[in-house]
Amino acid sequence: MKSDIEIAQEAVLWPIQKVAEHLDIPEDDLELYGKYKAKLSDEYLKSIEDRKDGKLILVTAINPTPAGEGKTTTSVGLGEAFAKMGKKAVIALREPSLGPCFGIKGGAAGGGYAQVVPMEDLNLHFTGDFHAITSANNLLAALLDNHIQQGNALGIDSRQILWKRCEDMNDRVLRNIVVGLGAKADGVVREDHFVITVASEIMAILCLADDMDDLKARLAKIVVAYNYQGEPVTAADLKAVGAMAALLKDALKPNLIQTLEHTPAIVHGGPFANIAHGCNSVRATKAALKMADYTITEAGFGADLGAEKFFDIKCRMAGLKPDAVVLVATIRALKYNGGIAKEDLSAENLDALKKGIVNLEKHIENLQQFGVPVVVTLNSFLTDTEAETNFVQQFCEERGCEFALSNVWAQGGEGGIALAEKVLKTLEEKESHFAPLYDENLPIKEKIGCIATKIYGAASVSYTAEASRQIRKLEEMGFGNLPVCMAKTQYSLSDNAKLLGRPEGFTITVRDVYVSAGAGFVVALTGAVMTMPGLPKVPAAVNIDVDENGKITGLF
Amino acid sequence: MKSDIEIAQEAVLWPIQKVAEHLDIPEDDLELYGKYKAKLSDEYLKSIEDRKDGKLILVTAINPTPAGEGKTTTSVGLGEAFAKMGKKAVIALREPSLGPCFGIKGGAAGGGYAQVVPMEDLNLHFTGDFHAITSANNLLAALLDNHIQQGNALGIDSRQILWKRCEDMNDRVLRNIVVGLGAKADGVVREDHFVITVASEIMAILCLADDMDDLKARLAKIVVAYNYQGEPVTAADLKAVGAMAALLKDALKPNLIQTLEHTPAIVHGGPFANIAHGCNSVRATKAALKMADYTITEAGFGADLGAEKFFDIKCRMAGLKPDAVVLVATIRALKYNGGIAKEDLSAENLDALKKGIVNLEKHIENLQQFGVPVVVTLNSFLTDTEAETNFVQQFCEERGCEFALSNVWAQGGEGGIALAEKVLKTLEEKESHFAPLYDENLPIKEKIGCIATKIYGAASVSYTAEASRQIRKLEEMGFGNLPVCMAKTQYSLSDNAKLLGRPEGFTITVRDVYVSAGAGFVVALTGAVMTMPGLPKVPAAVNIDVDENGKITGLF
Repeated sequence: MKSDIEIAQEAVLWPIQKVAEHLDIPEDDLELYGKYKAKLSDEYLKSIEDRKDGKLILVTAINPTPAGEGKTTTSVGLGEAFAKMGKKAVIALREPSLGPCFGIKGGAAGGGYAQVVPMEDLNLHFTGDFHAITSANNLLAALLDNHIQQGNALGIDSRQILWKRCEDMNDRVLRNIVVGLGAKADGVVREDHFVITVASEIMAILCLADDMDDLKARLAKIVVAYNYQGEPVTAADLKAVGAMAALLKDALKPNLIQTLEHTPAIVHGGPFANIAHGCNSVRATKAALKMADYTITEAGFGADLGAEKFFDIKCRMAGLKPDAVVLVATIRALKYNGGIAKEDLSAENLDALKKGIVNLEKHIENLQQFGVPVVVTLNSFLTDTEAETNFVQQFCEERGCEFALSNVWAQGGEGGIALAEKVLKTLEEKESHFAPLYDENLPIKEKIGCIATKIYGAASVSYTAEASRQIRKLEEMGFGNLPVCMAKTQYSLSDNAKLLGRPEGFTITVRDVYVSAGAGFVVALTGAVMTMPGLPKVPAAVNIDVDENGKITGLF
Repeated sequence: MKSDIEIAQEAVLWPIQKVAEHLDIPEDDLELYGKYKAKLSDEYLKSIEDRKDGKLILVTAINPTPAGEGKTTTSVGLGEAFAKMGKKAVIALREPSLGPCFGIKGGAAGGGYAQVVPMEDLNLHFTGDFHAITSANNLLAALLDNHIQQGNALGIDSRQILWKRCEDMNDRVLRNIVVGLGAKADGVVREDHFVITVASEIMAILCLADDMDDLKARLAKIVVAYNYQGEPVTAADLKAVGAMAALLKDALKPNLIQTLEHTPAIVHGGPFANIAHGCNSVRATKAALKMADYTITEAGFGADLGAEKFFDIKCRMAGLKPDAVVLVATIRALKYNGGIAKEDLSAENLDALKKGIVNLEKHIENLQQFGVPVVVTLNSFLTDTEAETNFVQQFCEERGCEFALSNVWAQGGEGGIALAEKVLKTLEEKESHFAPLYDENLPIKEKIGCIATKIYGAASVSYTAEASRQIRKLEEMGFGNLPVCMAKTQYSLSDNAKLLGRPEGFTITVRDVYVSAGAGFVVALTGAVMTMPGLPKVPAAVNIDVDENGKITGLF
């Protein structure tokens, strides 16, 4: 069996101008990055503003196995299937993070015959967007510490610094560090932390900003620290906004690439799906809606996190109205949710499937709460049996959802036509009555409670004393009316990764709360959240190589 | 008076394809980065390998004032002047570092009407080369600490780790840090340091590598630490080479941009001129020599550091044969070397000039030691008087050097024609008998002694006990036959920044010595060397902004 990178490298790509031509994008509006990548100019984005929006289709998933259930692969294949059927479709995806390529996870450009390409570029530096975010993030950090060093006129309390340095690398030793050691000229000593770049608030800001003015307004609001009076100190207070925005000038422009079948893909931004909202940029989604009749986009993690934030944060802020949701499941993940160990997922097991399918049931109900029609798809594995797939199909149809098998990993767009047909049928027959889950003006605890009970199925929410204190403080500071971004394990509907299926009667514990004022949401942390991954015993990096012709191997 | 960025933004640039066309570069061999930047493909570089080399002209300078004497400006203007005279010329320059843009120094793309453009791009992310180097550097660091975390099979002594993390930002609090704090999963605690990206050994390696194979061979040799037996641990031991090379695949390709007058400039790499050799990449210089009849390149700092390393490290390793040197001086810097305070440099002062011109004299003698003909140029300032410039001209001519005024800052190429004519005359009339200063097989102390006495004019060299110990160790390890890279103040021929003019009878103190085994040189440190700059009280960043059309202001 060929690896993803082998399949990708065998493909004959179109020059990106040809991909753009099919979307009627003038060549002059492309800013090329090599032959197969381009940024869309601001002028182009402005020129299409008055067009009518196409249909917006979100791809999300049930609670996954640790291997993931193939959301990106399904998104790519569905877009290719639309194109194969003669429809004008654009796929809007997140950019992958560089760090995990060298760890366990590998790249993130879809898989098999449903990939976006060039996959090496996408997984490595791509068009430099993440590097620009890293630079802007660390410029703000340098200005902050320099402010303290140079007399600390703002009275920043070095024990209450919120801003963290970042790096797009899995580097566990940077999780907890002490900076500023040495001589007087070497800064003021304090504890500090690095996060991976995708966890930077600037990533979330870039992905939610409408344009340069909005980007700057959001950057200005970032709360970097508290002063000795307990008042917030912002990026604007440090006069950091203009220089950060200058660093982000090009990163703000969406990137155009193609799938293996030359379907256009706008790949832009990639915030974490725990402490941030986990979707590609608003600018990318809005551009895609103007460029095509069908926009297929995805949200990170399972639907309890990804879809909820897509709806309640991204769609709410950007005024987007999703028309349909594709909910990706696998027989393997359903059996996993039924309590079967990872190594036994290949064997037919209808009992486990019946036990685990309650997870799918809850996600269907959740998505229906948002008023958006649902299509369920099974991302096919060779080990799936007919009895198993028939069971899932019947289960979905009984709940008012269209159902289709997807075989895009093996077949590309051809393997997604059955799914595309069900999506089209749903778009034609069922109207979306999308509305966010909660009123953003509710108190923070009520918003959290709403998500926890209605989406997760929790019986109650408990708050640590610290979390309650922070919530009071944030409400006093005027951040009470922001939507809530929940940081929770992706493996369970609850905050306990081991509670699979459809847990009930559990309590969600909120252990800390803080504001991402620039992004415009309040983050509620349940359990430990890893914002700086580590490398495993044998990192993927040791198998990566490049030959004298620039051909990369070992990236997956 | 217009600022550099205002002049640059008023220019009407050619599409980079048009610049390439004038050099007969097929459009297909360009990898575009936007409309005005391109990388040259490996295929193109191979296709020109058999061409005859053009003439190689090095631009260097006397010991500068803190404001710098305009080497880059002169290089750019000289290239433009050649082009104006109908000659085929290419300028080969270093890429500027991002960090200093936000501090005091500002950008580095020449100045006035002798700039390379687009200057904002060049000074910010350019084509991402430095970000790629940062990533490769920090991947190696992450793999190193992860190796220790995962059992430390190589027995790395965490007290003897040489490899440092890096970031392209002026951030003093990262000079001395402690990493690995927290829980067991958060790594092993140790002292660590960040350097600015231009100080990474990978920067030096990239700039000295002939091709991908050579790059990988050099990366493999990097000594990252010593083990408990005192033996070197390399990047190859950590199996980091392939992944680092994959990250550097595109960064290895030279970048083509243009001057304000559309003269082609290959801008590639930018190692520090103290702990590294301070020149643009070998690949850029070699490509330029094949592409044009005249290649103008520069080296960092004054000639005692920049030119010496250009000759003894870069030319030696790459087999380059420079044909002429342009030595840049200013009346201001000569008076400064004559003991005049910065604020009094504008007034005519022939006595101070006579006193300070010994600095120029020593640099002329030094360059002549390498067997390369010298042309002296005065980078003109409005405050220069005729009596002053006449004095300098006569002084140079008495020492067998051609002399010309340069007014490229105000006039672009037109202001460099007098200089270009003298360079052409020198190339026609004087043969270069270039040879490196010393035999690389001499013992390390003899090589250092040779540079210190012959170039700096020192009476002797003293070594700290630690330096002597390290030299013995490096020679035992087999690094004794590498050229030496001196880290010294740029403001004096001595290792004391306050000894201006032509100091004599002084002792150079070597306080530490280490090997950059991948770059292929031994670094000798005299005095304190800053490898991570800090930000000033009012950083330049606070004045930088970008408007809604992406126009950047305040970058200088």
